[in-house]
Amino acid sequence: MTASGPHPFDPINPAEIVLATKLVEAAFPGVKLRYKKIDIQEPIKSEVVPYIEAERLGKPLPPKPTRLLQVLFHRLDTGAFLKALLNAGTRSIVFAKELPKDVQAPVDADELEEIERLCLNHPAVQAEVAKLQLPAGVTVCNDPWIYGRDDPNETRRLFQCYMYIVATNHPQNNHYSTPCKFSPVFDGITHELVRIDFLPGGVDATTTETQPWKPVQTIQYAHELLDEPVRTDLKPYIVQQPEGPSFTVQGNVVSWQKWRFRVGFNSREGLVVYNTTYDGRNLFYRLSVSEMTVPYGDPRAPYHRKQAFDVGDVGFGITANQLSLGCDCLGHIKYFDGYRADSKGQPLLLKNVICLHEQDNGLQHKHTNYRTNAATVVRNRQLVIQMICTVANYEYIFAFIFDQAANIELEVRATGILSTVPFDNAAPGTTVPWGTNVGPGVMAPFHQHLFSFRIDPALDGFANTVYYEDSVPLPEDANNPWLVGYTTEQTVLRRSGTAETDVARHRVFKIRNDARVNPITYKPVAYKLQTSPSQMLLASPKSYGVQRARFGTKPIWVTRYRDDELYAAGEFTNQSADSQGVDKWVQRNEVVENEDLVLWHTFGLTHNPRIEDFPVMPMERVSVMLRPDGFFTKNPALDVPASNQTFNQSTLHPEPVACCAPAERQGKL
Amino acid sequence: MTASGPHPFDPINPAEIVLATKLVEAAFPGVKLRYKKIDIQEPIKSEVVPYIEAERLGKPLPPKPTRLLQVLFHRLDTGAFLKALLNAGTRSIVFAKELPKDVQAPVDADELEEIERLCLNHPAVQAEVAKLQLPAGVTVCNDPWIYGRDDPNETRRLFQCYMYIVATNHPQNNHYSTPCKFSPVFDGITHELVRIDFLPGGVDATTTETQPWKPVQTIQYAHELLDEPVRTDLKPYIVQQPEGPSFTVQGNVVSWQKWRFRVGFNSREGLVVYNTTYDGRNLFYRLSVSEMTVPYGDPRAPYHRKQAFDVGDVGFGITANQLSLGCDCLGHIKYFDGYRADSKGQPLLLKNVICLHEQDNGLQHKHTNYRTNAATVVRNRQLVIQMICTVANYEYIFAFIFDQAANIELEVRATGILSTVPFDNAAPGTTVPWGTNVGPGVMAPFHQHLFSFRIDPALDGFANTVYYEDSVPLPEDANNPWLVGYTTEQTVLRRSGTAETDVARHRVFKIRNDARVNPITYKPVAYKLQTSPSQMLLASPKSYGVQRARFGTKPIWVTRYRDDELYAAGEFTNQSADSQGVDKWVQRNEVVENEDLVLWHTFGLTHNPRIEDFPVMPMERVSVMLRPDGFFTKNPALDVPASNQTFNQSTLHPEPVACCAPAERQGKL
Repeated sequence: MTASGPHPFDPINPAEIVLATKLVEAAFPGVKLRYKKIDIQEPIKSEVVPYIEAERLGKPLPPKPTRLLQVLFHRLDTGAFLKALLNAGTRSIVFAKELPKDVQAPVDADELEEIERLCLNHPAVQAEVAKLQLPAGVTVCNDPWIYGRDDPNETRRLFQCYMYIVATNHPQNNHYSTPCKFSPVFDGITHELVRIDFLPGGVDATTTETQPWKPVQTIQYAHELLDEPVRTDLKPYIVQQPEGPSFTVQGNVVSWQKWRFRVGFNSREGLVVYNTTYDGRNLFYRLSVSEMTVPYGDPRAPYHRKQAFDVGDVGFGITANQLSLGCDCLGHIKYFDGYRADSKGQPLLLKNVICLHEQDNGLQHKHTNYRTNAATVVRNRQLVIQMICTVANYEYIFAFIFDQAANIELEVRATGILSTVPFDNAAPGTTVPWGTNVGPGVMAPFHQHLFSFRIDPALDGFANTVYYEDSVPLPEDANNPWLVGYTTEQTVLRRSGTAETDVARHRVFKIRNDARVNPITYKPVAYKLQTSPSQMLLASPKSYGVQRARFGTKPIWVTRYRDDELYAAGEFTNQSADSQGVDKWVQRNEVVENEDLVLWHTFGLTHNPRIEDFPVMPMERVSVMLRPDGFFTKNPALDVPASNQTFNQSTLHPEPVACCAPAERQGKL
Repeated sequence: MTASGPHPFDPINPAEIVLATKLVEAAFPGVKLRYKKIDIQEPIKSEVVPYIEAERLGKPLPPKPTRLLQVLFHRLDTGAFLKALLNAGTRSIVFAKELPKDVQAPVDADELEEIERLCLNHPAVQAEVAKLQLPAGVTVCNDPWIYGRDDPNETRRLFQCYMYIVATNHPQNNHYSTPCKFSPVFDGITHELVRIDFLPGGVDATTTETQPWKPVQTIQYAHELLDEPVRTDLKPYIVQQPEGPSFTVQGNVVSWQKWRFRVGFNSREGLVVYNTTYDGRNLFYRLSVSEMTVPYGDPRAPYHRKQAFDVGDVGFGITANQLSLGCDCLGHIKYFDGYRADSKGQPLLLKNVICLHEQDNGLQHKHTNYRTNAATVVRNRQLVIQMICTVANYEYIFAFIFDQAANIELEVRATGILSTVPFDNAAPGTTVPWGTNVGPGVMAPFHQHLFSFRIDPALDGFANTVYYEDSVPLPEDANNPWLVGYTTEQTVLRRSGTAETDVARHRVFKIRNDARVNPITYKPVAYKLQTSPSQMLLASPKSYGVQRARFGTKPIWVTRYRDDELYAAGEFTNQSADSQGVDKWVQRNEVVENEDLVLWHTFGLTHNPRIEDFPVMPMERVSVMLRPDGFFTKNPALDVPASNQTFNQSTLHPEPVACCAPAERQGKL
């Protein structure tokens, strides 16, 4: 922040959290409050654009956009859930309103711990645990899950606690290997036990009363708990950057290799990339992972409600790992911190939640003139900005990767531990059609991970157009006598709506600025979105699973930009009955051609677990890219220095001692 | 090779090339011969399997498989094209047969240079060049192209020479930026000029007589020839492996992190990976890129014949770059050499055509126990074996990448220079429907790159089964009352044939061994092929383009193994009229369930050039993977040492000097 306060895109700072608490407390004197979230409110774009354009062009800055904060909180006297909007500049409340009864706040970090404790200490739960007759040293723990939805009339705030045996008292014991067959449900406001659900133990929905636990081996992942030794033949691999990194960071502004962008952070989306320019040209106003949903395919109660919205229900900012040097990245690392409020409204430092570093990704371009053997080789240096989120059992690694050819990649790696369920499989050979046996007494149900990548483009300006381009054979006519010709067909998305991917037609989605024509191609400057064509939601359109996550039914959505439309499944997803997101917004049927538009790409994984994904999952990688397509007049990486040994300092593998003529050496064993 | 000669999978050695020449010369006394190829003949699998199984199990070795060599050559007296098979052990000819007149040999390396020289020195060509009235210092050059096919009766060996202006006398002048509008065709045997084709210069097929050249700027890629300065803000990034690599190499055997395989090399496929095992278990008998085709979409003559088969027409072994330290890889590098014969039958060393090194690919798995904050982090160390092929204008980078979770990735990067055509575009704004204007007077036509990945599996044995698995909703019945359940459907390919990819059903192809059941999943051990669903050939099924490359019409082919069936488009592709490859072999309709089978995956790129792909193309990456799926009983990377700072030695980015309270620092500009 400058003397005159934070930049419009800066994350919330501790002073602002303190201010917000003060303002809200003053507005509700004597009322006990519980804070769910205190964060920046996204600044108003029409105020921001003149400001960042003046910054970009080095002109005198106009007045700063209004600095807005938002507060979500519960009144503990009435149980009501409220949202307040604050003006940090005038230190005043814009509004504070009670939300409808069927709207549930997201889970806050303190709440999970409270419910976990509540569950463990509840007499009825303890009575159930007693029936397990656990041996000495064996205990239980629980993961409180957001409840999901299966009843149109439910307005309570509910938590489903999945319980596990803790066979070994170790900070990394893998309790997911030993799930229990009962699952208490609690009211998050009254803290009442609503009921205990019993979980199916076999191939159908049949449940039984709690029986004494039959000890099984826990499949562990921590090295200290493994039976087998750790590999000893992996040699160190050290990245050295003796002259430091190629990036510079000033506050939250990152500059690297003609790129410039601002690192944003909020408790919901975590990492946000703002105001991306390349060589001084506008590219993207805002990039983020706006939502994701993880519905499970096991049809049996209570699993039918298992559907996480990890952005809306909890938040990637809250679940982001506090990273440490040498573990998650190699080379020269810059970390960014964040702040959130606790349930009392006090600021909490989130240390090292975002990391920034360079990496080498092999060759970017090469050509050898075969006549002269003269070669030009340029390596693909990349800038990675990354966060890693732990959502109970699971981990997601999100990285925006910038390269020197003006490409931006969003890479998602799914890792962590599968969400498991008990499975007796007493009869050898028993399996279920919706999951994989991953260990003794434990099964991992099929599920999907669908992500919504929100792209707010600004290609050489803020009025853009989205279209798709298919590759199709030319007609079989006199102009195509040998029947080999092909061409492309363009379809412009003139109104807000959806589109499908189409591998068979090599469908490519592009964003262009019709007002800026490339002087050589004679076509408007454009970027293409290299999609990740994925299976969409498998659940029935009639299910809550789909109604709550309609962004997961189409890979492409285009909406006209409006402030406050940031999240694909809507503002409040926890126990939602119906999506209030992109599916609603496209219905406005607005003109999006040459307009301020937003492109949303839904992609992901259908994840039918492999046993190799247990007890901790080798990452599954999905990636989408934004690549210039007629935006420049030639390869933008042409001016990257050539790759050579002086710069790279590689090492040659020693040849075995020769014992025969050189011509005989080859292939020697 | 051992005292008793080379291993069955060892590449050809110089002594064998000398032997082959001697045997063939002796069989054709007094006849002048021109050698096209002298290489190993793939050993007979039924002889090899007992041998490599004895090696794997440490048992006494059976007799070595017959060492066979193959020779392709022309008789210069008759022009006939012959193939000979030799037994290196008995130093004898098995057969030497004349091939049919319509079969054309692949292009050999010497031949390209001969044709290039022939073209430049031909009086008719020189007369045409004279009409260009080139200024002093400006010359021409040409790239001889394989001719393709458009006439059922053509039996001559033809070359189409595409000609270019050389505006600057520099070893890296980019002549592809300045194509000429005439193209001589030569007979490769008689060396006669067949005709001069004139190339269309505008938006239709109209051609004109050669006119004086109107100078245009060459779009250069070499740094010495660029107008703009090279970037100065890229800092060194050095990979250090102070204790050396984690791999060991003995002859052509590579051992790394429970993997063991043999590096093969031949002049056609280049790199081949043989006899891959993991932790002593058989995985794959042979992996290679068996063919590729690059048809162009510009329908006009003579471009309608532009369709390269870079494996069959030329060969990746022949076009593989001789790599040098520090340019193409970072870290500790082992190079492998190869040998080929020249047109006189003499052995030629191909230095450093394959490189082997480790790389770090970010995180492999991570889990943080949110209760204890205890994290397990394991990085994804990979072993990369790579070759880079220059096929005239274009470059392909092929890498087999092994990791510690028992995955094998085949990564293809396309780079190099677009194949361009002249385009006058006199009227500003002129474009064609089948290409992109990439510079003044130069257009890059649309084209496709389709690769055939040949997978010869040996999962715990040599009888395997291929099937595919779709993810589909469960029926809407009493077992699925909330309509969220889903399951998988398996379809076994019982007979040789083809299959389609299907993103909408999340179709996954798997290879399993029905005789080996996983003790926990109760399903046969398997690997899955993570395909790269791609648009198939765009040309009409009636076109030569498709008839010559039917492997490009379906993404999946399964054949029963037969010796000598190695190449997806058949043995001879140069000027072929009809494919003699997988499309023929599947028609045998053989049982492939629990049999020795081969799985072929066709994938690739529809490449409608971006102007950013010129003058040298930022790599376009395609990748397919083979991943264990129920092959092990848990994550095979569990025993990889954890990532930590002691091992990785990362560097912390210095914080800016604090000038205000810590709570105020954040977001400071």
